[in-house]
Amino acid sequence: MPIKVIIAGFKGKMGSTAVQMVKEDKDLILAAVLDPFATEESVDGVPVFTKKEELTGFEADVWVDFTAPKVAYENTFFALENSFAPVVGTTGFTPDQIEDLTALSMEKKLGGLIAPNFAIGAILLMQFAAQAAKYFPNLEIIELHHDKKKDAPSGTAVKTAELISQFRENCQQGAMDEEELMAGARGAEFDGFRIHSVRLPGLVAHQEVIFGAQGEGLTIRHDSYDRVSFMAGVNLGIKEVVKREKLVYGLEHLL
Amino acid sequence: MPIKVIIAGFKGKMGSTAVQMVKEDKDLILAAVLDPFATEESVDGVPVFTKKEELTGFEADVWVDFTAPKVAYENTFFALENSFAPVVGTTGFTPDQIEDLTALSMEKKLGGLIAPNFAIGAILLMQFAAQAAKYFPNLEIIELHHDKKKDAPSGTAVKTAELISQFRENCQQGAMDEEELMAGARGAEFDGFRIHSVRLPGLVAHQEVIFGAQGEGLTIRHDSYDRVSFMAGVNLGIKEVVKREKLVYGLEHLL
Amino acid sequence: MPIKVIIAGFKGKMGSTAVQMVKEDKDLILAAVLDPFATEESVDGVPVFTKKEELTGFEADVWVDFTAPKVAYENTFFALENSFAPVVGTTGFTPDQIEDLTALSMEKKLGGLIAPNFAIGAILLMQFAAQAAKYFPNLEIIELHHDKKKDAPSGTAVKTAELISQFRENCQQGAMDEEELMAGARGAEFDGFRIHSVRLPGLVAHQEVIFGAQGEGLTIRHDSYDRVSFMAGVNLGIKEVVKREKLVYGLEHLL
Amino acid sequence: MPIKVIIAGFKGKMGSTAVQMVKEDKDLILAAVLDPFATEESVDGVPVFTKKEELTGFEADVWVDFTAPKVAYENTFFALENSFAPVVGTTGFTPDQIEDLTALSMEKKLGGLIAPNFAIGAILLMQFAAQAAKYFPNLEIIELHHDKKKDAPSGTAVKTAELISQFRENCQQGAMDEEELMAGARGAEFDGFRIHSVRLPGLVAHQEVIFGAQGEGLTIRHDSYDRVSFMAGVNLGIKEVVKREKLVYGLEHLL
Repeated sequence: MPIKVIIAGFKGKMGSTAVQMVKEDKDLILAAVLDPFATEESVDGVPVFTKKEELTGFEADVWVDFTAPKVAYENTFFALENSFAPVVGTTGFTPDQIEDLTALSMEKKLGGLIAPNFAIGAILLMQFAAQAAKYFPNLEIIELHHDKKKDAPSGTAVKTAELISQFRENCQQGAMDEEELMAGARGAEFDGFRIHSVRLPGLVAHQEVIFGAQGEGLTIRHDSYDRVSFMAGVNLGIKEVVKREKLVYGLEHLL
Repeated sequence: MPIKVIIAGFKGKMGSTAVQMVKEDKDLILAAVLDPFATEESVDGVPVFTKKEELTGFEADVWVDFTAPKVAYENTFFALENSFAPVVGTTGFTPDQIEDLTALSMEKKLGGLIAPNFAIGAILLMQFAAQAAKYFPNLEIIELHHDKKKDAPSGTAVKTAELISQFRENCQQGAMDEEELMAGARGAEFDGFRIHSVRLPGLVAHQEVIFGAQGEGLTIRHDSYDRVSFMAGVNLGIKEVVKREKLVYGLEHLL
Repeated sequence: MPIKVIIAGFKGKMGSTAVQMVKEDKDLILAAVLDPFATEESVDGVPVFTKKEELTGFEADVWVDFTAPKVAYENTFFALENSFAPVVGTTGFTPDQIEDLTALSMEKKLGGLIAPNFAIGAILLMQFAAQAAKYFPNLEIIELHHDKKKDAPSGTAVKTAELISQFRENCQQGAMDEEELMAGARGAEFDGFRIHSVRLPGLVAHQEVIFGAQGEGLTIRHDSYDRVSFMAGVNLGIKEVVKREKLVYGLEHLL
Repeated sequence: MPIKVIIAGFKGKMGSTAVQMVKEDKDLILAAVLDPFATEESVDGVPVFTKKEELTGFEADVWVDFTAPKVAYENTFFALENSFAPVVGTTGFTPDQIEDLTALSMEKKLGGLIAPNFAIGAILLMQFAAQAAKYFPNLEIIELHHDKKKDAPSGTAVKTAELISQFRENCQQGAMDEEELMAGARGAEFDGFRIHSVRLPGLVAHQEVIFGAQGEGLTIRHDSYDRVSFMAGVNLGIKEVVKREKLVYGLEHLL
């Protein structure tokens, strides 16, 4: 039986991409869409709402949320209260809020997902890198992004480094008498290993973790070209939350 | 307490590299070495034997075996009988023999390892590729070797492909109306995906699995430059078998 | 003094991207645009024409042409006759036509460019590969494209291979006793070297030439993500043709 | 007619590798070898000398020199005086000495080569990168070496950067408001572009120059695994100097 899906924030970039994805999957039905900025009454026969309260008692299985940080908590709370399993890509939750929502989901015996990152490939890279670091403690991270990006290293690189650190035996890499003839050549240091940030026009979002050991090397690379790549993660989230009875934070818990 | 290690086949390439590795690890002690071709009585104070029977009752924890296929079974059997946990890199076991040895190990409550491949990096690549294939069913394998290699694809590529097939939802990749303007351009077909073999001077042994999905890509690559890389796997094997009570076939079961 | 540019075929994808490019470059002025399908009289103050004859006697320096194969020859002829140096991305010229147009350009002392490929990066890759092949006769080509592409190898890969062959001392690569255990593993053969075609969703258009020699390797890779990348080549073409007195075929002759 | 070669410094690593290379090339004849530390009178029928003066009047075409910096100048001078075209891999020449030797070579109408780097692949990478930088001013260099290397960036990376700077229109890369959240993340700055140094066990010597532009990328990579790779450059040097009438500094002048 197809899964009935509500999409909140359907006028935004992620929301409208999600509408497309749901429509193209025969195992999913788009039951309703919600957006305070909507002016139409229906879209291709699907009812449009502008206030979440209008969906009280509506029949659906999953609540996909790509709205705004300031309403993310109350939206997710509302979804759980109304027995819609939430799949939330909106950011801005505090740890306390996530705890509350998890408790509510268990009480309601509903699955749920709050995910800061829906890119399955990026998450697999992190998991593989963490696992490889157990056996290969010598590694460096190279992340490459378009040249409009302001911060370096990228948030994903920092998260990857943190996860690796939990699995890697701490050690200082490189030659004991290493010397930077030009400042910054060896990159940023994190727990004894290095992170390098490349910024060039034409690039989108890429990350590479290179492991080295006596006589061998192992490299894991993720390339992200388009936000459409997040939809595989949203799709997976929808199909997994209906099978579960507890909300989780992070797509990695559904892989 | 250090682990006492016997190395059988210590005059061969792998055996002598293993001797070196054991000596350099302060958690291991080289207790004895064995080789029918040995003429010396001791090596750096370590006793040398030419017949395995002379080691009956010898005090040691692990039997590392890099001998020859025709004696591999009886050597491993002898090791278990004498309470040496075997770590075996010699090939040529039949499935029946592996079953026998596993049963004997359980009876003796001894760990053990028979491994066709000790390259941890190569095994991690296979495992990661298999796991990624669950989420990314579209993939191709490129393996690259030196130009003296006779067979294509490499044995490792075929094993990687087989393992991937167990986890990947079967599908035919590429355009429906795909056409090879030059025979072989699309590589070898295996269960709907492709394998490409590159052969060039200068290369050693490399393998890359490339996954593609809407808007993203994931690549896992292993580079093997030197047989010294196998020693990390042998080292891991030695340290793991002493903690276990059953022989396993394949280093992946100890990762 | 800025260069005055006419763009023919400005309603098409390439033409409209070219309009944008010309507008954003302060060294260029968009003098007029032409398209039989145009209905407007002017675009941002630039006069619009629907028939090329209306441009007879118009004052401009360069005629950029992204029209259709069937009118490409007569358009280019018209441009030269009217003293507009042509920069033509339309395909479908016969060798005889190119010869005629070259002769006419010399008579008129006008530069000109007919280019089947405006991607500077792709052309640099071909030139570098051809030059490297003089010193490294052992090489393989890997081209990677999206999985809707019908033909393999790609046209660019075949052109690259042809150019390499002109500079490479002919030799048969790989082991003498090489054996394909699975048909196609070694790729397509071209003059003794191999071409491999990878097709995956998420990929756009990529090409890699790998050279191998004793103890070293050299790799040249081009990644093409977007047709916007062609505009650097069109821009270069415009600025070069005004300095020259002869039409050339192929952007490589202006690098 | 084969080229007769003298090898000075034949007991050293590079010299002995050169002996092997000359013997294996049927277009070359090993005429004599020289080394102050030699004790044998001949090697496989080739006469051995311990003082260069003993070679006065000897009949040979080329003098290959892998000796020591302190004798490099006088050796090369001696070679030219005795009509041996020098191919010198020894370092330590001052600009004045190179000028002197060049003048002497022209007087003698002899070719000659003094090369700080014989890796053809590394030199091609530099040349290609410099040429690409004319069209793609946005680039970053990543160099990767084994983790015993003390200095960062590598000497080759600095030379590559310097050469690129001569051909690249100067510009500051990256976002205007770029911010390093961790010091060194963006690498070392050189004329507005960045250099990153990776150090890992298992690596040998590798360098990558990545160019980015709207919608495309171009990457050139050189991998050096073994000193044997220098021999192709020495071989090329030998065969080129006999055709020339002037000494040059840098293998790039013979490519």
